[in-house]
Amino acid sequence: MRARYIPEAEERLADNPHIVVAEPEKYKGHFQERFEKKQPLHLEIGVGKGQFIVEMAKAHPEINFIGIEVQEGIIYRALEKVLEEQVENVQLIHMNAQKLTDVFAGGEIDHIYLNFSDPWPKKRHAKRRLTHQAFLRNYAEVLREEGQLSFKTDNRKLFEFSIQMFNAAHLTIREWSLDLHEDSEIENIQTEYEEKFSKQGKRIYYAKLSFEFFKEISEAELDYI
Amino acid sequence: MRARYIPEAEERLADNPHIVVAEPEKYKGHFQERFEKKQPLHLEIGVGKGQFIVEMAKAHPEINFIGIEVQEGIIYRALEKVLEEQVENVQLIHMNAQKLTDVFAGGEIDHIYLNFSDPWPKKRHAKRRLTHQAFLRNYAEVLREEGQLSFKTDNRKLFEFSIQMFNAAHLTIREWSLDLHEDSEIENIQTEYEEKFSKQGKRIYYAKLSFEFFKEISEAELDYI
Repeated sequence: MRARYIPEAEERLADNPHIVVAEPEKYKGHFQERFEKKQPLHLEIGVGKGQFIVEMAKAHPEINFIGIEVQEGIIYRALEKVLEEQVENVQLIHMNAQKLTDVFAGGEIDHIYLNFSDPWPKKRHAKRRLTHQAFLRNYAEVLREEGQLSFKTDNRKLFEFSIQMFNAAHLTIREWSLDLHEDSEIENIQTEYEEKFSKQGKRIYYAKLSFEFFKEISEAELDYI
Repeated sequence: MRARYIPEAEERLADNPHIVVAEPEKYKGHFQERFEKKQPLHLEIGVGKGQFIVEMAKAHPEINFIGIEVQEGIIYRALEKVLEEQVENVQLIHMNAQKLTDVFAGGEIDHIYLNFSDPWPKKRHAKRRLTHQAFLRNYAEVLREEGQLSFKTDNRKLFEFSIQMFNAAHLTIREWSLDLHEDSEIENIQTEYEEKFSKQGKRIYYAKLSFEFFKEISEAELDYI
């Protein structure tokens, strides 16, 4: 999702330091200080306009949520939603996912969400996909031992790539669906994007993974994915 | 697929011992003797009416094919097709897949195909699905070290179950598709059943797996699948 330039975005982010973490490296290893209660810490990577994280935070007051987003004009929209809905268990960080291990300590996170990440369809951009080995290594580091990753997308090719990557890295599929909206037994809070595309009849693919057998993928194995 | 009773089936099978292996245990470890040429040995489990194996055998004269099938009235149809098309690199065995390791020696098979296997939709019948751990163990035994398994189905729930089982057993996904007929770069010979259902617009799911990291799934892990 590309955002148009919003002149007031930077200022609005700076004006809300109780929600938007200005210098996140300073909280590495003790992000719980940012919240009222010490409780499980869930991280959404690519928070978009914030509907998912805000609805999740309302449905799960027993969880602390951090949402990161690289685009200023987008995280600004998420901030507006957090303010509007007055949720107290959400913190936002304007940062690039590549810096994950600079900001979060080993084992600090309980759960990671990737929702409708950029598919980067060209093969030469495969390394930019948030489910590439380069990112999985970082997720494995910041997640606690029993930590999990949830991933959903409407993009078949991204999903196929991602599951193949997870499988090669020996992540364990704990739950999954090739047609999420048909499977009513799975709890699902929708993103803005998801609502729009599922109304058009597009399938949503979903998987939840655990990391207990995680291993680095060799270059030779990466080649066939 | 249930077959109606065909009175002449038993007789026809017995009358063609050059194609239908009457006492397969006798060939354990030296099935190559049944063929004109010694070349890679591929096995289809659940040969159905035989369209897939016969078309594969015609397209790949450099491969020897064995098709097994538990239902007499069905394998009889496959036999008719082999005779009609005069393919010389196909052998058939009327047997139950549960007896695989009684009939084939360790490492004797190069490739296994499972096409549109019975989904056994009830959870209490899960062990009968040909992609259950109980079967995977036997495939791992009869396949040579670099051996692979190809699997396709139109049944989403069977596919989800199977991929989760493969993943838990640390099989490696070498190639796969969540919409096989849309992916023209993958070689695909259709079964009778597949032709019929894909014409109705049903998606065909497909995966090709290798066994180099195969491990037994623990009871605790089996529980969540």
